[in-house]
Amino acid sequence: MTDQDVTAPPTTNFAAEAAALDARDPLAHLRERFLAPECSDLVAYFDGNSLGRPVATVPERLAEFVSGPWGDRLIRSWDEQWLDWPMQLGDRIGALCLGAAAGQTVVADSTTVLLYKLCRAAVDAQSAQGRTEIVLDTDNFPTDRYVLEGIAAERGLTLRWIETDERSGVTLEQVREVVGEQTALAVFSHVAYRSGHIADAAGITAAVHDAGGLVLWDLCHSGGSVRAELDGWGADLAVGCTYKYLNGGPGSPAWAYVARRHHGSLQQPVWGWLGRRDAFQMEQGYEPAEGIRSFVSGTPPILGMVPLDASLDLVEEAGIDAIRAKSVELTELVIRITDAWLAPLGVEVASPRDPAQRGGHVTLRRNGFRAVTAVLWEEGIIPDYRDPDGIRIGVSPLSTSFTEVVEGMRALRDAIQALDAFK
Amino acid sequence: MTDQDVTAPPTTNFAAEAAALDARDPLAHLRERFLAPECSDLVAYFDGNSLGRPVATVPERLAEFVSGPWGDRLIRSWDEQWLDWPMQLGDRIGALCLGAAAGQTVVADSTTVLLYKLCRAAVDAQSAQGRTEIVLDTDNFPTDRYVLEGIAAERGLTLRWIETDERSGVTLEQVREVVGEQTALAVFSHVAYRSGHIADAAGITAAVHDAGGLVLWDLCHSGGSVRAELDGWGADLAVGCTYKYLNGGPGSPAWAYVARRHHGSLQQPVWGWLGRRDAFQMEQGYEPAEGIRSFVSGTPPILGMVPLDASLDLVEEAGIDAIRAKSVELTELVIRITDAWLAPLGVEVASPRDPAQRGGHVTLRRNGFRAVTAVLWEEGIIPDYRDPDGIRIGVSPLSTSFTEVVEGMRALRDAIQALDAFK
Repeated sequence: MTDQDVTAPPTTNFAAEAAALDARDPLAHLRERFLAPECSDLVAYFDGNSLGRPVATVPERLAEFVSGPWGDRLIRSWDEQWLDWPMQLGDRIGALCLGAAAGQTVVADSTTVLLYKLCRAAVDAQSAQGRTEIVLDTDNFPTDRYVLEGIAAERGLTLRWIETDERSGVTLEQVREVVGEQTALAVFSHVAYRSGHIADAAGITAAVHDAGGLVLWDLCHSGGSVRAELDGWGADLAVGCTYKYLNGGPGSPAWAYVARRHHGSLQQPVWGWLGRRDAFQMEQGYEPAEGIRSFVSGTPPILGMVPLDASLDLVEEAGIDAIRAKSVELTELVIRITDAWLAPLGVEVASPRDPAQRGGHVTLRRNGFRAVTAVLWEEGIIPDYRDPDGIRIGVSPLSTSFTEVVEGMRALRDAIQALDAFK
Repeated sequence: MTDQDVTAPPTTNFAAEAAALDARDPLAHLRERFLAPECSDLVAYFDGNSLGRPVATVPERLAEFVSGPWGDRLIRSWDEQWLDWPMQLGDRIGALCLGAAAGQTVVADSTTVLLYKLCRAAVDAQSAQGRTEIVLDTDNFPTDRYVLEGIAAERGLTLRWIETDERSGVTLEQVREVVGEQTALAVFSHVAYRSGHIADAAGITAAVHDAGGLVLWDLCHSGGSVRAELDGWGADLAVGCTYKYLNGGPGSPAWAYVARRHHGSLQQPVWGWLGRRDAFQMEQGYEPAEGIRSFVSGTPPILGMVPLDASLDLVEEAGIDAIRAKSVELTELVIRITDAWLAPLGVEVASPRDPAQRGGHVTLRRNGFRAVTAVLWEEGIIPDYRDPDGIRIGVSPLSTSFTEVVEGMRALRDAIQALDAFK
């Protein structure tokens, strides 16, 4: 809180500050709603931006699901509830986190499969108009880049790469420079997976639209952490996972958003039975269902939606604005501790220092961080490592306390010092 | 068991016979390993061919998963176990049910998405050789037909339809008539979803191969019920779901088989990060991983694999041959009861009477069966209805008793008589 942190004995001051922050944290009580594993070695979990922790009610919710809708109602549950779950849960995420009005968001498949389906729908429509370029950036998440490479190869399209600084992210100026009459689709991450940089989504969307292109936003690293305004930005398409800040569990289903104005004109390529009009008539010939349901393909992963629904209860209780406010305070604390304790050890902040441009994690860089990560994992401090030399400190607002941040950062400092002493 | 069933008071005899069959059923004890839901209205579950019942240990297994690998080990579990689960579980299904040697089967996505990925891989390779036809039949499951329609539309290929009798299935003779030098790919179901007819998979595979085509088998309605011999048939590709006889739960992940000889030459179109060589290096440029892993796209649905693994324990304990033997006895009993009780009411058997040609369910037909199904569902007897006028009696060998069959069939008889009395 003060400049004294740099000179005073650091542990005491940050610990006291964290205790004060925890005491006045309006979301503090929600941390206890996460599962506290018995016999855990966990000291600080800094990877909620990669795999969120389970909500405490999940085992009970799953048991109820297994004995009730699955085990007791059995096949009747498809009619009674499950056929509508993909749209209902999509609407819930849309309202709580995405700024998306109802009827435009659906939960299904994986992020990668949804990326493929939505990007194909977009470029197939746009290439019919003679638009042959896909704009993307070099630091987008790998699966986004790979999916688009595959689509460009199969459809004979050109990838127009923006060289992004891996310590920041794509900028409006960069986008303006490359979009034009050839632009079919532009695909960017709202929050960059390495740096945590928040893109100017409204400005970039407008710039791509000005050139006649469509925009898909990947919200994997912002959904449930930074408020999105898909309708407000005028976004065409978006996808996101639910296993990071939305705590859906490993491999939980992803969501897709298709703006209502594109319903009926954009068609995705994986024509499955549950995306067909009147699916259970099982007739000859595929005709897409109306609205967002046409972006469903096969049988949706229902069981995987149960933990997600439990987590959305917490998001609803907290509200995305309070979540974002705590997220900013958490990442500010990470940066101030880094400046005080770790900068003298050669650690750099590789994320934006302006909180308005920074998402829910902070990336720190230093030689030897791969080895440091391995040591920390053994000791129950769990960040993740990303090449080159980056440790991501992911602080999930619903499940992370300020005190946890201080304890984890102290362990990081000690691990660096211990490894340096070995040299 | 005897001809007396037709003339003697039917209820008594079939009930006694069923009791005797249950008493000597070597798999009878496994039925108690399924969850017995409290407060259930369930009298007879005849839809294990559509959604299998949960194994009793599933709530406990899920709770352990949530508190252990997910909640306690957290992100570390990806390295410790989850990254290999799709292949390990695939190998397990391959060995227990599919006649597939290790390294050729993977669990991921939905049946529809895997169908798309594998069929695209096949036709893309074959159309490069000038082969432009996809052979399929009119009574294949809707999602198979729709996926192939979509692929034909986008790749400029021709669909070559075999008109299948909905009371049987595709025959070797029909296939021989249509395959030729234009054949890129043929796609059939091993067990037909309506009639339950078992295709001559070995013969049909050889006939398609003789013409230079590739074959994909859909094993959704046979996996875990009828032994498949994918390696023995010389199959190229196969897919199947895990929520029917494999009891994986609603929307549990599907599996895909790609014969080893095609690894490295067939490439699927959805290029995701977890199908890339050295995924966690997150490098520029997609290069497929080696072997069956290249058919993975995004993050696999890990949670959805937990109930499946629990169910495979039972399949392993029983053995697929004993499962198939009980399946035949169960469907034989259904047909004999139908002949005795229901044929006089106008019900026809629309499945093969030769057990060697019949899978795990029996389809019965009669006018008014849609209304009959609705009545039965209210009373806790759960078959499913398929147009036109078909009730499917699915008898899952691990969870269905012979007595349950008699009770359910008695209720079906009573429901028909009650509805007739109203007219």
